[in-house]
Amino acid sequence: MMTEEAQAVLRDLDDHKFAKVKEAVRDMHYADVAELFESIEDQETAVLLFRLLPKDTAAEVFSYMESENQEQLLTVLTDKELRHILDELYLDDYVDLIEEMPANVVKRVLKNSSPENRKLINQYLQYPEDSAGSLMTNEYVYLKQTLTVNQALAVIRANGVDKETINKCYVLDDQHHLDGVVSLRDLILADPHARVGDIMRTNVISVNTNDDQEEVAKMFSKYDMLSMPVVDRENRLVGIITIDDVVDVVQDEATEDFEKMAGIVPSEDTYLKTPVFTIFKSRIMWLMVLMVSAMVSGALITHFEGAISALPILVSFIPMLMGTGGNSGSQTSTTVIRSMALDEIELSDFFRVWWKEVRVALLCGFALAVVNYIRIVLQYHDCAVALTVSLTLIVTVLVAKSLGCILPMLAKKLKLDPALMASPMLTTITDACSILVFFIFVMAILGGRL
Amino acid sequence: MMTEEAQAVLRDLDDHKFAKVKEAVRDMHYADVAELFESIEDQETAVLLFRLLPKDTAAEVFSYMESENQEQLLTVLTDKELRHILDELYLDDYVDLIEEMPANVVKRVLKNSSPENRKLINQYLQYPEDSAGSLMTNEYVYLKQTLTVNQALAVIRANGVDKETINKCYVLDDQHHLDGVVSLRDLILADPHARVGDIMRTNVISVNTNDDQEEVAKMFSKYDMLSMPVVDRENRLVGIITIDDVVDVVQDEATEDFEKMAGIVPSEDTYLKTPVFTIFKSRIMWLMVLMVSAMVSGALITHFEGAISALPILVSFIPMLMGTGGNSGSQTSTTVIRSMALDEIELSDFFRVWWKEVRVALLCGFALAVVNYIRIVLQYHDCAVALTVSLTLIVTVLVAKSLGCILPMLAKKLKLDPALMASPMLTTITDACSILVFFIFVMAILGGRL
Repeated sequence: MMTEEAQAVLRDLDDHKFAKVKEAVRDMHYADVAELFESIEDQETAVLLFRLLPKDTAAEVFSYMESENQEQLLTVLTDKELRHILDELYLDDYVDLIEEMPANVVKRVLKNSSPENRKLINQYLQYPEDSAGSLMTNEYVYLKQTLTVNQALAVIRANGVDKETINKCYVLDDQHHLDGVVSLRDLILADPHARVGDIMRTNVISVNTNDDQEEVAKMFSKYDMLSMPVVDRENRLVGIITIDDVVDVVQDEATEDFEKMAGIVPSEDTYLKTPVFTIFKSRIMWLMVLMVSAMVSGALITHFEGAISALPILVSFIPMLMGTGGNSGSQTSTTVIRSMALDEIELSDFFRVWWKEVRVALLCGFALAVVNYIRIVLQYHDCAVALTVSLTLIVTVLVAKSLGCILPMLAKKLKLDPALMASPMLTTITDACSILVFFIFVMAILGGRL
Repeated sequence: MMTEEAQAVLRDLDDHKFAKVKEAVRDMHYADVAELFESIEDQETAVLLFRLLPKDTAAEVFSYMESENQEQLLTVLTDKELRHILDELYLDDYVDLIEEMPANVVKRVLKNSSPENRKLINQYLQYPEDSAGSLMTNEYVYLKQTLTVNQALAVIRANGVDKETINKCYVLDDQHHLDGVVSLRDLILADPHARVGDIMRTNVISVNTNDDQEEVAKMFSKYDMLSMPVVDRENRLVGIITIDDVVDVVQDEATEDFEKMAGIVPSEDTYLKTPVFTIFKSRIMWLMVLMVSAMVSGALITHFEGAISALPILVSFIPMLMGTGGNSGSQTSTTVIRSMALDEIELSDFFRVWWKEVRVALLCGFALAVVNYIRIVLQYHDCAVALTVSLTLIVTVLVAKSLGCILPMLAKKLKLDPALMASPMLTTITDACSILVFFIFVMAILGGRL
């Protein structure tokens, strides 16, 4: 869905009305200009448009682009143009770029990077994926305790223009230890002759370079922060994380849980960019595991072949019993897994959660059983069969909802991933349970007729 | 999981070591102090702790509390204490409070609110839930174009201390129309005698009061913003949204999709706070719908009772076929629904998505079929049955993955909710399809033996 404005720019570009294009892109937001490149197929036109951008905004636009468009440009721009962009990029965008480009482009990028940037990038690339370190940028302003507010503002004026955020300034000692934090707002509102050391806040919330990004996102949310200092083991400031990257983390983590719960091995790329064979690989593993484990349910049925031959109508209830068991279980496991991901329930809440699920299961099971009983009696005039199916339903729902809360919490207790370990297996286990329960009741209630 | 620090404070509180408690809470972050109240059972202790807080931080701590703890305090604090808190609250926290408290507490709160606040709250409460308007706060700083940078900084110093964010200042004309935006950083770095009108940015990204919160979150993410101006239809600024509220929106929307895809009617409250009967109501609807529709699969089976009596082994493959169909379909629908929620695929991509899914389905189906064929031949030495089951698998996976992308995209095309309409129904539909396909192949390949 392109805006009319964007369509007009692309038309003007096609018609070689370059003055009009130049004027239009000057008034557009960087993100919107970057989006234009997604609709341009051929490389020449892309480079042409890029060269029409004002010099000082080209790097900004570049940082908002999709990685294919970046790659397209990086292979054809001159070394001089390349260096200009790289010099202007924020370090976190720089690191992302290196991580996403293919080897030949990375080589070109590194060749055109300044020695300091090359060193910094190598350092940043060492943090594990999904760690706080991998989200950091070094674009922060730091101050000393002994400065006055006026001196501090002068430091910010001198250094701040290159920094990604100057709303919070970090107060460091000579060894780069994090002593405190002072906001630009505090500085503006303070007496110009006060010392930074006197107005800074000392109870600084920070994270460690190796902390998991999910924990970092939770800290942002708990403390309502816009940027978070990242320190090493000796409490030395090594970088900051800004909240816009946290929003992406939150989305990525949710997507990962969606995928795991559907039995998909999570991937990094977006759907349309992922090749068919990669999608196949991410899905076949669980399909195979679940297919093999579903054979257990099949084997159970073979075990009761005699009952089926005697009363073939029994088979027709199996899809409904399996389906209801599966749905009941996944309602519970979804709720429990999501609540644990959001820290709304913890392992110590196990009995409260389980007891709640038992009561919900009894209510649901009873309601479903009544509807079923009436339906079977009306359709087949067979109260014994109706009773068998209805009792099976109640027990199945109870078992499914119990497992739906036990499995994810057990997985967490064992330090496994609840979404991964509990969700895809759950349906298969409840399937087998519902068939087993069904035939136990069949034997008990209908045994005489078999 | 309480920190040792928090446990120490609670112990000191129990031992009436009030000086120690006072000192400890002064050094803690507001959010951590607010968390202390969650572990205090009786009202008297809670009020006692609250009264030990420094006066100027009490309101901040209050705004971080869980709503039960807020309610507990609001019923026992004196009118004077109450007014002090309410005067210090930011408007968005104030509105949240009114929305969450029971009627008798709201009455007390409104009685102790200033007339201006009462008016503002009434106005803010009118925006529809989940709209940009419902997320707004009025705590922004605005400037006029004609001010110099020095005058602007003076305005900020005079007004800014009460404002939730002064990192962005909005430039308004006399009718409150949004002319431009200038960041505190721009002001600090600009020539003190320049005019605000000359340094402001005029291509302001804004949202409308009625825009959906999901769209607002996407705008924040696209444009990397920290705060977003909200305007009415005449482009008059009515409030701003800050990014910390957007992180909550992103989490809530993901949770809602998780619930819908598991066949749960989404609820507002967290799991542990929701009563058993409310949980029951949110789950029974879909369980009932899916149970009734699963009877279709049952009816299909009864239709083929003859085949089952002749070759009872056939029944044992049904759980595996249904399970694999369901899993294949939900892999696809989860991917498609999530990708649409993140705007990674659009309706116009339908044929690309479907063609991709067809190829993935053929790969998956073929791999599963081969494994199955070998297993059945080894176990039952019956190539015809093995062929029947394997062909059914390929077709079932193909149908399930096709439906998994057609149903959610069709729902979106019809302006229905893809997560709600496509996901819970999908398994039931693929169940019926797999049984139908199975018996068609049974008739075609094994017909002579029945």
